[in-house]
Amino acid sequence: MPESDSEELSRVVARVRERIDPDAAERSALSEAVDALSARVGEALDELGVAADVVQVGSTARGTWLSGDRDIDLFVRFPEGTDRESLERYGLAVGNAVLPDGREEYAEHPYVTGTFEGFDVDLVPCFDVNDGASLRSAVDRTPHHNDYLQSRLDDELAAEVRVFKRFLKGIGAYGSDLRTRGFSGYLTELLVLEHGGFESLLRAAADWHPPVEFDPEGHGTRSFDDPLVVVDPTDPTRNVAAVCSAENVARFQHYARELLADPSVAPFFGGDPDPLSSEEVREHVRRRGTEPVAVVFDAPDVVEDQLYPQLYKSIAGVESELSRRGFDPVRTATFAADSAVLFVELAHRTLPSVERHGGPPVHVREHAEGFFDAYADGDAYGPFLDGDRYAVEREREFTDAVDLLESDALFEVGLGSHVESSLGEGYAVLAGEDVGTLAEEFGVELVRYFDPRP
Amino acid sequence: MPESDSEELSRVVARVRERIDPDAAERSALSEAVDALSARVGEALDELGVAADVVQVGSTARGTWLSGDRDIDLFVRFPEGTDRESLERYGLAVGNAVLPDGREEYAEHPYVTGTFEGFDVDLVPCFDVNDGASLRSAVDRTPHHNDYLQSRLDDELAAEVRVFKRFLKGIGAYGSDLRTRGFSGYLTELLVLEHGGFESLLRAAADWHPPVEFDPEGHGTRSFDDPLVVVDPTDPTRNVAAVCSAENVARFQHYARELLADPSVAPFFGGDPDPLSSEEVREHVRRRGTEPVAVVFDAPDVVEDQLYPQLYKSIAGVESELSRRGFDPVRTATFAADSAVLFVELAHRTLPSVERHGGPPVHVREHAEGFFDAYADGDAYGPFLDGDRYAVEREREFTDAVDLLESDALFEVGLGSHVESSLGEGYAVLAGEDVGTLAEEFGVELVRYFDPRP
Repeated sequence: MPESDSEELSRVVARVRERIDPDAAERSALSEAVDALSARVGEALDELGVAADVVQVGSTARGTWLSGDRDIDLFVRFPEGTDRESLERYGLAVGNAVLPDGREEYAEHPYVTGTFEGFDVDLVPCFDVNDGASLRSAVDRTPHHNDYLQSRLDDELAAEVRVFKRFLKGIGAYGSDLRTRGFSGYLTELLVLEHGGFESLLRAAADWHPPVEFDPEGHGTRSFDDPLVVVDPTDPTRNVAAVCSAENVARFQHYARELLADPSVAPFFGGDPDPLSSEEVREHVRRRGTEPVAVVFDAPDVVEDQLYPQLYKSIAGVESELSRRGFDPVRTATFAADSAVLFVELAHRTLPSVERHGGPPVHVREHAEGFFDAYADGDAYGPFLDGDRYAVEREREFTDAVDLLESDALFEVGLGSHVESSLGEGYAVLAGEDVGTLAEEFGVELVRYFDPRP
Repeated sequence: MPESDSEELSRVVARVRERIDPDAAERSALSEAVDALSARVGEALDELGVAADVVQVGSTARGTWLSGDRDIDLFVRFPEGTDRESLERYGLAVGNAVLPDGREEYAEHPYVTGTFEGFDVDLVPCFDVNDGASLRSAVDRTPHHNDYLQSRLDDELAAEVRVFKRFLKGIGAYGSDLRTRGFSGYLTELLVLEHGGFESLLRAAADWHPPVEFDPEGHGTRSFDDPLVVVDPTDPTRNVAAVCSAENVARFQHYARELLADPSVAPFFGGDPDPLSSEEVREHVRRRGTEPVAVVFDAPDVVEDQLYPQLYKSIAGVESELSRRGFDPVRTATFAADSAVLFVELAHRTLPSVERHGGPPVHVREHAEGFFDAYADGDAYGPFLDGDRYAVEREREFTDAVDLLESDALFEVGLGSHVESSLGEGYAVLAGEDVGTLAEEFGVELVRYFDPRP
């Protein structure tokens, strides 16, 4: 694909920026809210008589938020020597004082989240450590990230970051949550900084040969096994892109090439496709001549960062168990909303009654005699000779994938713990065209499944 | 399995010998026939004025034939300097003079075969070469084999050879023809000679770890890639067991152990099992839950040593093509009588309409873009991302194994030439329970297929 000239791309970027750059009113409203909140934090600290400062972090601190985002992140930074218990107690006290209608949340440690003048505010206590490598809690790194970026991202680079974020959102690769496993905000900022802008990043990415490694501060002290590596400028031992999957790196490369070849605003704002109807799902199944099966259960009531890794683990376990049992999965997927679904499209729902079981070479006498004697008087076909080995065809335990999924065997495939307990409370198995009913809840997921262009 | 003591085995061997040792009358009848034939050959040579001698070879020359065998092999040995044309001309002339009702046959070179006093006689001209390594024709080795064995096989060893041959016949591993790919007569004689008798050979074979190598004259000059190697005492470059398949070596090991554990006359005289009926074949198919397909055609009119290698090659080609196309062969077989059959038992006769086709990694830009562009506007599902690669699900060419076998694709699987031309004249494809009709011609082969103990 020939790449277009920069002018055409620049015109597209300008049109994107018109839609995502916060205007002056939005900037000043944000700035006033942050000032007011910071003042309140100062007062609360004074009242408690605690030596701590407040620092604004995140995209709204660095001018890299997209117009309409309403997140304010304030970190209350306690001296490094503070004991953990005091930090948590004072942190919550400050949070509750500043956001009297807020609620306490627990990530690694407690913080307070609430709203203020239309903004979503997180008030997070942390330790004031010297650098990202000497953390006392995982969030201590954040103010250092902020320091590093604020001194390097001018307005123009911040604008380029916004364009890149919007692009990643459009193609579904934005976010370091464990459902998406994409690019984090911090990662997008470092990549734009590294390449000097969105366009040069695109042109570079189009030619990446993973593993691709960047080390802005040239201080990396270890190697990483990830397709994309950006050594954290504040911590030489950390890969900022560790969570970014190979598929999302490839997705970015794919769309970078497409955008360079044919610049367009559309991929920046790719929304949900129209959901499939049940009948359309059934038509796909008929057209593909496959036999899908689906395990449907109540989605466990846990946060997405817990739920999706468990669903991914579960569907991989189901797929590998079906394969091990002789079934032939064509493709798999997992969906979650109120229900959760483990979906496996099989080439065939049923298998022959016999399955081949290979034995040892005849010349390995003890082992061979043991194998022969074990099957000689049974119901199996054989033992017979297959070249220099014994083999038998014995009765298959499960000839129907639905029977397997309805049996206890489902619980032995390495499910996530919450998935396992939810399944333990009951589930349904759908098969064949009956999976059409899934469209009632997962029509959008199913159109992505049945029309899977990247 | 514990091995029994020798006494029990000796009693079994004695009972076998009662049935297979030629009696005095048989021996003298044979001896008289050989003398009479040799005299006739001498007269014929005299009349032609040719300097050649006659030598009796084969099992009847060495006392290793089984009672009831009626084969007399006489070689007419011409001086090494004889030109090939004269050898053939004189050879046929002698043969026709000695066996006036015989007919000319052609192996590597012409010979005459006929009957004489109830015996089947082959009269074969050969060159009188110095040793087995300086052959002028393949049969020149035979008199050397004879010399080597006659001087070493006394009456008792000859009897042990007969027992071993009967055992191999009983278990279906006797014969170096290309259908059986088993043990040749010469090989059985060398193995008995090497081990000093049938029982010690059995005990050794039960513990063989192929490759097993014997070199009676300690003169081998090369290595061999065969499971069983017996270097020809008359030719250091030749493995007498070259044609013996790994499966037949394993078969001998298996039955050797069984005989040692539980001595019995039965395995020496294992005959054909009762053939399956068509209904019994259909029952097996139903019970196994498989979907057999069979290509049925007129057996090419060629000798078995040509036919079977072609059938073996053809069934391997059909199996591998079906696998390559996504079908899942459970087991295969080939049968021949008036008809010939390529039989493949499949897990499923039909497959989904789509088949997965993996593409290159996205980062291999030129290749990846080529793959993407090739499928982007087509009917395939995708291209989509599968990890860091593209993949598509495209329409499968053959979703029904019968369609495949009825198409020209059958002729592209590397059939043997005579099989190919016979198929070219027409064939039928049977599927599912319809293969039951094969029992009308192949009931015995099918019972071996469906009850495949070694």
